[in-house]
Amino acid sequence: MVSRSELKYIQSLGQKKYRDIDGVFVAEGPKLVRELIESENAELKKIYALNKWVEENKNLSISIDVTAINEAELERMSQLKTPNKVLAVVKKFEVIEPRTKDTISLVLDTIQDPGNLGTIIRIADWFGVPQIICNANCADMYNAKVVQATMGSIARVNVIYTDLPVWLKQQSGTRIYAAMLEGKDVTKMNAIREGFIMIGNESIGIDKDLLQLANEKISIPRKGKAESLNAAVATGIILSHLV
Amino acid sequence: MVSRSELKYIQSLGQKKYRDIDGVFVAEGPKLVRELIESENAELKKIYALNKWVEENKNLSISIDVTAINEAELERMSQLKTPNKVLAVVKKFEVIEPRTKDTISLVLDTIQDPGNLGTIIRIADWFGVPQIICNANCADMYNAKVVQATMGSIARVNVIYTDLPVWLKQQSGTRIYAAMLEGKDVTKMNAIREGFIMIGNESIGIDKDLLQLANEKISIPRKGKAESLNAAVATGIILSHLV
Repeated sequence: MVSRSELKYIQSLGQKKYRDIDGVFVAEGPKLVRELIESENAELKKIYALNKWVEENKNLSISIDVTAINEAELERMSQLKTPNKVLAVVKKFEVIEPRTKDTISLVLDTIQDPGNLGTIIRIADWFGVPQIICNANCADMYNAKVVQATMGSIARVNVIYTDLPVWLKQQSGTRIYAAMLEGKDVTKMNAIREGFIMIGNESIGIDKDLLQLANEKISIPRKGKAESLNAAVATGIILSHLV
Repeated sequence: MVSRSELKYIQSLGQKKYRDIDGVFVAEGPKLVRELIESENAELKKIYALNKWVEENKNLSISIDVTAINEAELERMSQLKTPNKVLAVVKKFEVIEPRTKDTISLVLDTIQDPGNLGTIIRIADWFGVPQIICNANCADMYNAKVVQATMGSIARVNVIYTDLPVWLKQQSGTRIYAAMLEGKDVTKMNAIREGFIMIGNESIGIDKDLLQLANEKISIPRKGKAESLNAAVATGIILSHLV
């Protein structure tokens, strides 16, 4: 049983401004919550779960209280179309200053679709890319749809929001590769050990001020007629050739 | 101005059973509708548009009537969260028996997420893969979200629904590659000229009866910790290495 004010609080975390006030976000579903419980990086504040979930997770070592809720309460708390047994309030991850040498980083310019951002975080985790640097126009990484689409990878990839042109100018010496419709054929390039791979907005691509900072334009050769590829798909393809 | 019954009819096309009765689907938004008007494959039945769209498309040669509607009507007709100026009722594309020799085809087993299916159709179009063979458990290609996610590629890729095990057994001699978590490293394979590339369900992968038909298991090497990749992203990566 949850109080009305607690319910309202959880609902409010659907909005960025409320997540920012307390520095927390909501994670939903058994798989994600389990990953966060087992992760060293994640600090859970509260868990709300159906009895079914509590039963199924008896063996899990959980250091915080689990509040039992019913289906109706879960439905009201959840940001998802199909709420799934459990929901946790989690402290936002620490922002770690990215290391830029001897590693590959993704740089995202205005990736606005939450599903795309979440999928890109998952892709980075698959390819062992430890960090993603976003500008402020990207979707919020703690948006429910982003969190969901990361499938747990949110706890393993360092995502930073910053003023990209300013920040990139401070990273002298690290090569910047800009993903474009026209550029060097990425399928014929050798793997790289260090660099920023820059991915642009879903409709308009990379901002021209940012593009000026790039050392090399890269592209995925088109053999058919589609005008473009989805931003997350393009990121996956590029990393599969360069990592 | 549209009649109440016309409005209801358009709304009903949000459901597969009503699309199947008349063999039509709904396409939305200026970009998609324009592509369909200009496509040789697409036969438009009706267009409903805001005056704004009509003004902007005066030069377009349209052989059918355009019904002017207002924002409120568009909102009620649309299956999208953000309706966008125009909506067309389009005849479903002809189902062409796929040719399997000297070409690459995608074979989809139970791709249930409409966004994934649409994105995969767009990826096929980018890489010049002319056809996708789906089992009946895949999302319907004429679902509004699928149509949207294809970004116009729906008019250029031949998508067929069939009983996969039965159909594949009839295609003797064409190699079947199954995308798996473990298999031959796709990044080290040579491009192929002919074959079926089989992609499995988002959660459970490829059905074991189908897997038995595969000649080769292929996989995308994992360098990090994510458990899996999104099905559309995996499809894009595999095609970028094999096409």
